[in-house]
Amino acid sequence: MRGTGKADVFVMLAHPVGHAKSPGVFNEIFEQKGLDSLMVPMSCKPEDFDTFWAGLTAAENVRGVIISVPYKAAVYRKCAAAHDRAARVQSANSVRRQADGTWYGDNFDGVGFIDGLKAGGHQIAGRRILQVGAGGAGASLAYCLAEAGAQEIRLADIDADRAENLAALVRKTFPQCRIDVGAADPSGMDMAVNATPSGLKAGDPLPMDVGRLTPEMTVVDIIMEPAETALLRAAKEIGCRIQPGRPMMDFQVRGMSEFFDIERRSRGNG
Amino acid sequence: MRGTGKADVFVMLAHPVGHAKSPGVFNEIFEQKGLDSLMVPMSCKPEDFDTFWAGLTAAENVRGVIISVPYKAAVYRKCAAAHDRAARVQSANSVRRQADGTWYGDNFDGVGFIDGLKAGGHQIAGRRILQVGAGGAGASLAYCLAEAGAQEIRLADIDADRAENLAALVRKTFPQCRIDVGAADPSGMDMAVNATPSGLKAGDPLPMDVGRLTPEMTVVDIIMEPAETALLRAAKEIGCRIQPGRPMMDFQVRGMSEFFDIERRSRGNG
Repeated sequence: MRGTGKADVFVMLAHPVGHAKSPGVFNEIFEQKGLDSLMVPMSCKPEDFDTFWAGLTAAENVRGVIISVPYKAAVYRKCAAAHDRAARVQSANSVRRQADGTWYGDNFDGVGFIDGLKAGGHQIAGRRILQVGAGGAGASLAYCLAEAGAQEIRLADIDADRAENLAALVRKTFPQCRIDVGAADPSGMDMAVNATPSGLKAGDPLPMDVGRLTPEMTVVDIIMEPAETALLRAAKEIGCRIQPGRPMMDFQVRGMSEFFDIERRSRGNG
Repeated sequence: MRGTGKADVFVMLAHPVGHAKSPGVFNEIFEQKGLDSLMVPMSCKPEDFDTFWAGLTAAENVRGVIISVPYKAAVYRKCAAAHDRAARVQSANSVRRQADGTWYGDNFDGVGFIDGLKAGGHQIAGRRILQVGAGGAGASLAYCLAEAGAQEIRLADIDADRAENLAALVRKTFPQCRIDVGAADPSGMDMAVNATPSGLKAGDPLPMDVGRLTPEMTVVDIIMEPAETALLRAAKEIGCRIQPGRPMMDFQVRGMSEFFDIERRSRGNG
């Protein structure tokens, strides 16, 4: 039976939380593995975040939390310790309880993205990449693309300062990667990545100048729903290879499962 | 699929919470009815209760909470409004979210007990009843036994003041019922009820003087595990009719399901 008084409790925090995929994905995993575990969606208003988080921390049987918009940075600041890939972007999308009750943070946005690209057969090492969007997820992506050996990353963001700041930070950590800030124009690039929310809603403007896409380019969208965004549709028509958002999620789930030690629990249970 | 981002979230609060039956019972109901709902067990230390409760209240998608030892009185004090049967014992074992975000409390301990007795074919109206235990659950039981028409209730508690206080309160509300305080001796009674935790653990002392039980008496235990306590075993040997703790739980679940409007949700979903 899943969900007894002894259940391992995980929380998925976002605001709003109704659209979040993680609870369904993890509860399905728990069900399949026969684990007495639950992932429960929770939402709080931004002005209530500190109160909510203090309460969640007081809930001694909550073992871990997955965090989405708009709380990744706020939760990172609550962590007593964190993995370097969370620390460098000052943002956590997963935290687990440490023995002393404090939180250890990690961030699987970037690694899920990279693992998804690799699984899709897309090479990163040596490539020139346009990345549109230098916000929360974008920061993780840029670091991980540089770490994976991208030759060049051009960052485009409607907030040019944000893009410049991110470029400076990534450059400092990965000086072998050429990083500059420019327009959302894929000309001369091998790969173009949308890391903005533009495309979530019908009628959103295209995040980049698709008129400059050419068939040898790879176009990547981190948006999961719709599975085929207007950007990916346009890219497909041009003849580009495309990569949708779902694999990034799937590989994040794999990383989070290891982080929460779900496999070991499953073996212990079976 | 049960447990998506849109799930109706219920919490079961106790300290500790591992032994609590409600999460398993309700999650089973949700599963059977095909509802996207979860009941998640949560535990917090007494010194963290205020912090925990503030956080839970900030979790805007938490629709209801079931409360067990030691938080029924503390949660009652957090309610903006409550049913009379919770107010008279200053104790809530169920709260649901009101439209303005505040909590409405109720308490199904007593009604579950009475409904369980009736379903077991045990009459209460006109009976003389020994009740051992005048604590949290005991208070609900005494009120509801008086309300159900008991002719006489004798309250016994190791804390005589607690018994006297409860007797005075119930007497005020139900003056037609004779209520006194005495020893844990069933002599002259029709029914003897254990409302203490004595019997939960092997080797606990018997809660009442079983040497004074006679075959025409009915003996009731509110302890659910073990299903047959030493008290019930002794009563059975004497030839008494017995009533175990489980029906009280089952009928509380029925009351709570109505309170949380689970049936209507089920129909809306089906």
